[in-house]
Amino acid sequence: MVIQSKSLVSTSPGPDPVTSIAEERANATFDPVDMHAVIEGSPEKAQKILELYQSLERDPILAPGYHDYELSRDENREQTTARIARMTQYVENEPYEDFWRRLNLMTVYDPSLGIRISVNLGLFINCIRGNGTEAQYNYWCVEKESRHMKQLWGCFGMTELGHGSNAAGVETTATFDEKSDEFIINTPHIGATKWWIGGAAHSATHVVAYARLIIKGKDYGVKTFVVPLRDARHQLMPGVAIGDIGSKMGREGVDNGWIQFSKVRIPRFFMLQKFCKVDRSGKVDLPPLEQLSYISLLQGRVGMASDSYRICARFITIATRYAVGRRQFKSDQREDEKEETQLINYPLHQRRIMPYLALTYAMGLGTDRLERQHAETVKTLDDAVAKKNEKAIYAALANTKSLFVDSAALKSTLTWLAEQCITETRQACGGSGYSAYSGFGKSYADWVVQCTWEGDNNVLGMSAGRTLIKNIQTILEKDIKIKGSTAYLSDAKEYLNRKYYLKREEQLTAIEALRALEVLIVRVAAAAAEKQEKLESWDAVSYERVLLSKLHAHHYLLETLFLATRKAQKPEIAYVLSKVTKLYLLTNVLEAFARDFVSYAVVKPQLSLAISSKLVPESCLEVRGQAVPLVDSFQQPDGFLNSAIGVYDGNMYENYFKVVKTHNDPTKTKAPYSLDLEDMLNRGSIQSRARFENDIEASKKLSS
Amino acid sequence: MVIQSKSLVSTSPGPDPVTSIAEERANATFDPVDMHAVIEGSPEKAQKILELYQSLERDPILAPGYHDYELSRDENREQTTARIARMTQYVENEPYEDFWRRLNLMTVYDPSLGIRISVNLGLFINCIRGNGTEAQYNYWCVEKESRHMKQLWGCFGMTELGHGSNAAGVETTATFDEKSDEFIINTPHIGATKWWIGGAAHSATHVVAYARLIIKGKDYGVKTFVVPLRDARHQLMPGVAIGDIGSKMGREGVDNGWIQFSKVRIPRFFMLQKFCKVDRSGKVDLPPLEQLSYISLLQGRVGMASDSYRICARFITIATRYAVGRRQFKSDQREDEKEETQLINYPLHQRRIMPYLALTYAMGLGTDRLERQHAETVKTLDDAVAKKNEKAIYAALANTKSLFVDSAALKSTLTWLAEQCITETRQACGGSGYSAYSGFGKSYADWVVQCTWEGDNNVLGMSAGRTLIKNIQTILEKDIKIKGSTAYLSDAKEYLNRKYYLKREEQLTAIEALRALEVLIVRVAAAAAEKQEKLESWDAVSYERVLLSKLHAHHYLLETLFLATRKAQKPEIAYVLSKVTKLYLLTNVLEAFARDFVSYAVVKPQLSLAISSKLVPESCLEVRGQAVPLVDSFQQPDGFLNSAIGVYDGNMYENYFKVVKTHNDPTKTKAPYSLDLEDMLNRGSIQSRARFENDIEASKKLSS
Repeated sequence: MVIQSKSLVSTSPGPDPVTSIAEERANATFDPVDMHAVIEGSPEKAQKILELYQSLERDPILAPGYHDYELSRDENREQTTARIARMTQYVENEPYEDFWRRLNLMTVYDPSLGIRISVNLGLFINCIRGNGTEAQYNYWCVEKESRHMKQLWGCFGMTELGHGSNAAGVETTATFDEKSDEFIINTPHIGATKWWIGGAAHSATHVVAYARLIIKGKDYGVKTFVVPLRDARHQLMPGVAIGDIGSKMGREGVDNGWIQFSKVRIPRFFMLQKFCKVDRSGKVDLPPLEQLSYISLLQGRVGMASDSYRICARFITIATRYAVGRRQFKSDQREDEKEETQLINYPLHQRRIMPYLALTYAMGLGTDRLERQHAETVKTLDDAVAKKNEKAIYAALANTKSLFVDSAALKSTLTWLAEQCITETRQACGGSGYSAYSGFGKSYADWVVQCTWEGDNNVLGMSAGRTLIKNIQTILEKDIKIKGSTAYLSDAKEYLNRKYYLKREEQLTAIEALRALEVLIVRVAAAAAEKQEKLESWDAVSYERVLLSKLHAHHYLLETLFLATRKAQKPEIAYVLSKVTKLYLLTNVLEAFARDFVSYAVVKPQLSLAISSKLVPESCLEVRGQAVPLVDSFQQPDGFLNSAIGVYDGNMYENYFKVVKTHNDPTKTKAPYSLDLEDMLNRGSIQSRARFENDIEASKKLSS
Repeated sequence: MVIQSKSLVSTSPGPDPVTSIAEERANATFDPVDMHAVIEGSPEKAQKILELYQSLERDPILAPGYHDYELSRDENREQTTARIARMTQYVENEPYEDFWRRLNLMTVYDPSLGIRISVNLGLFINCIRGNGTEAQYNYWCVEKESRHMKQLWGCFGMTELGHGSNAAGVETTATFDEKSDEFIINTPHIGATKWWIGGAAHSATHVVAYARLIIKGKDYGVKTFVVPLRDARHQLMPGVAIGDIGSKMGREGVDNGWIQFSKVRIPRFFMLQKFCKVDRSGKVDLPPLEQLSYISLLQGRVGMASDSYRICARFITIATRYAVGRRQFKSDQREDEKEETQLINYPLHQRRIMPYLALTYAMGLGTDRLERQHAETVKTLDDAVAKKNEKAIYAALANTKSLFVDSAALKSTLTWLAEQCITETRQACGGSGYSAYSGFGKSYADWVVQCTWEGDNNVLGMSAGRTLIKNIQTILEKDIKIKGSTAYLSDAKEYLNRKYYLKREEQLTAIEALRALEVLIVRVAAAAAEKQEKLESWDAVSYERVLLSKLHAHHYLLETLFLATRKAQKPEIAYVLSKVTKLYLLTNVLEAFARDFVSYAVVKPQLSLAISSKLVPESCLEVRGQAVPLVDSFQQPDGFLNSAIGVYDGNMYENYFKVVKTHNDPTKTKAPYSLDLEDMLNRGSIQSRARFENDIEASKKLSS
């Protein structure tokens, strides 16, 4: 037995994950820095992101740490508040675009911070910009400095206890009082209580309240009103009742609150009046373009799609490094090796995590495209509106339709997939994945609300799917081509009439898979259209609508991935990207929707079985060879990953143990409740505890 | 506007979920009490469970409450300790079987408590019983009273930092010192640190340590040793280093710890020696029946399968009641209704939750069967061993093989399905599902470790699947019939050679679905067998092995459900059970594995599409009609569900609001950190904060 001292004293050789990781890097066929630029869309954006990572990992208040995984609710909120205060300095000092990128990156490790600021700067201010006049925006956001998180803190009062998804159904009332030229904001019953309002419990000074405009007994539908909640001393305004909504599954750093208004009076001009206007006499001027007001909500959806990419990148990085460093059992395919087999060399393990690696690439490229599409669409529309060019406005609105479909499909599909990715990568790290210090637990709990808020995933999916079905109906009935992101539906007739069947392995190229996906979408949509017409119900085809939304999202991603591969300048990058694309299309597309591909006669059953039993394992193995450089390419540093088992150098056991010991003082060998435990173990007999009342002697006395 | 005062003052009518729930109950076609007896296997067991619920909901310490969702780690552990202390009174006073039933029920709402006690009374004591001599069991468990959670507290030292699933690979050593007649327990390096050991951090006085038996330089493999960790004053023994493993994703009430042994000496007879014996001179007597020692681990697996049923019952009850009480939007299928549409009346919502309702029935009946199978198998074996009847022992071992396959397949498949069920039912409750007070968040975080521990699901699935493939190989090569729970494989040749094709809707009866499932299993297993033989690797068919394990689990459940329906005495029970069975087989079986059914030519593609687009919606609708009585039949009382939105009377809004206000004092209108917030909002200008050093005046001065 050789005793040796390195970082620790060992009496026999222990595991050596560091060497395993180093070997992987030695075999890299490409430079992760090059790949990073491809994933992020440009070298400039990639560099900006790294600069921000550096700034964040150094910042004493903004930098994440393992202690973040141990905070109580109160501590969490305190920390978030300190981080917000720190962020106000950045919002005043760096370009707005950089500030948002910083916030988006921080959202990966501190989603509570992300949403607290996003509700204020995103929802609250976007709502004023989208629904208010220029003067109203200037007053509330510029003059009052709320856009710099100063003086005012705004929250977003849409959801009620009784109404979430159906925002048009909210029941808070804003009744015009002609006498005083005021609106009276009122919560008529418990169901209309504003609920879940982020920032309301403790932070907000103002809310944009969604309320029914009532004038002379007539209900004009839901409009938006700026309502002060707290005065300059941060005391609740009269008539305003607010409380903390309490503990949540995650995001404990957010002070979500409930709000009840009891006949709260606000001046008429606190109503946001870009579109709908109410004059002094209560006359209502209803807008022709009120739909424009909803575009401001799209930023959130686009952001959540991007969040999905970054959170997947984080956890697939951790799980891949763990799979390389961790050895367990001996594979019967590696009997020549001395040591136990690395998890990543098991076919099943590859099949569990490699598809998520490929998916993350598709997400990265796809959401970069979505971000650009969003920026362009908004800019075109803003320009047209600024020029008051009605024709240009309507032209721009056509683009927003594509953006609605794409962002709805991608937000819902990607947030769901990210939920699955966190779950599967956590399980792939075994027990270590259950430790708070690996990062999975908190992130999962924080993440999953993304599937519910700002458009419940099923509601969004149904909405995107409905558009696809309507497009198909238009194409088939009117025989016209359509434009925008669903233009591929225009070939519907051909796809329906001509036999299209993938039969052979050689056909499984990216371009053919894209085509196959289009054929499937057309066939599902056409069948759904028929069913919808027959049953005269859209609800009857809701399942098909969500399915179509998912397929459309994958079409968007696959198309982007395919184009990026073709555009890649370095051959070694193009080569590995083509392998990633292949894996993505085999697993996330052809295998995930295999039943539909087979049943709608797009893929032959035999080929589908071959995909599962032969092609997927082969493709996983191909990507596995470059797995470490592929995750290194996400360029997320240790301080950002914040995972004891996911460190860059692979030294996971020593690092994990050190974190455990640092955060749980081993010199305290007894728990604070140890006396209770000891007392319990050392308790007397049942008889003595019953004061011997049940003994034979007592029995004798009692019966005598 | 009518103002009225009921429980609260409303200025217009609010939501009325209570009436909605009452209407559902009025339409019940059967008595939930009858159904409860069917699900639990007998009226006696059903009654026992209700008595235990009553005892628990009254017990001041054991009863759950909403405060449970807000505990810090320290508070959680303190509460768990208090509950353990309370449970010691029950373990001394009620029949052991009742005590375990009580503990299993409590595990649904307090899994930390469940596992803390299970590690001690289950793993620790079962390990001594399974591996130790009768004298050893009597000494450690009876004389020392550990079976009553007294004097000693045992933990289970199998897992190490470097070895989890591969228990045979643990690296802790137990070296025999002939001179002193002792074993020296040693942790040679960091990888051999005992890790995750439940109860080690603070509670345990002893551990059964899995360590390599080393005698005269020879490694005899992993054996078990009782090692004292703490002395009678609860101080750590010399050479024993223990620490808290820290924060986890869930189960924060458990004091998981790490243990390192530095040459810790124990007497030779602390080694458990039922099978493997070491005499005074170091001679080793190796056992012929060491495999018997693993049977004691099966109790945990059976328990986790049962846990899956009860946790699904809890959340499907909550989600179903919520879906009845919650109204949102207006379905285009219910335009005649005045109010918005109840979630449960949307086809998509039915499709999201009804399949889990059917699954829960299948789980309930299936795990009751598994519990009985386990009890019988253990009893038969124990009897044979007691009689030292070797022939009877070998006969009993054949039964244990079935139990190994069934419990592995059911533990892995059902814990995974339960994970999905909690996720989907939570999402089906929208934002309310994210509130801690609805119960989903804590339960999810507590639950998911079930997929990892006591046999990682993929490892267990591979194990069960391997047996199925081996069985098929035996059947096909040797042309013999097999017995036990995989007897249905005996028809393999017929299933492979004869064409078997479900084409028509009328064929989709339970008995035909069971047959179809058998045909699919046979075909998947045969294809996997061929691949395994060709590639000479079991790892190459790991994906197929896990698939087979899942299919076998569903076969077990479907068979049980089918038989229970046939056996049901009351016609109204049989009728509704047949509907539940139909929904289960359509969704959880035929749709969940649709690709395989179609590609292996068991179900026609057209029929598969019809299942999805027509039969599943129809079947969901049928079950939806009795959804509330069906979940009432689980008979879980409000105090046990512990969900603000899942209460029996359906009064979810008022109840939820009351819970929020009770647990978050609204009179505290400012947060403890409010001054930081106010200071941030009311900060001075950038210029003033920079002491005007960047102003023009300063610039002039500095440049002059």
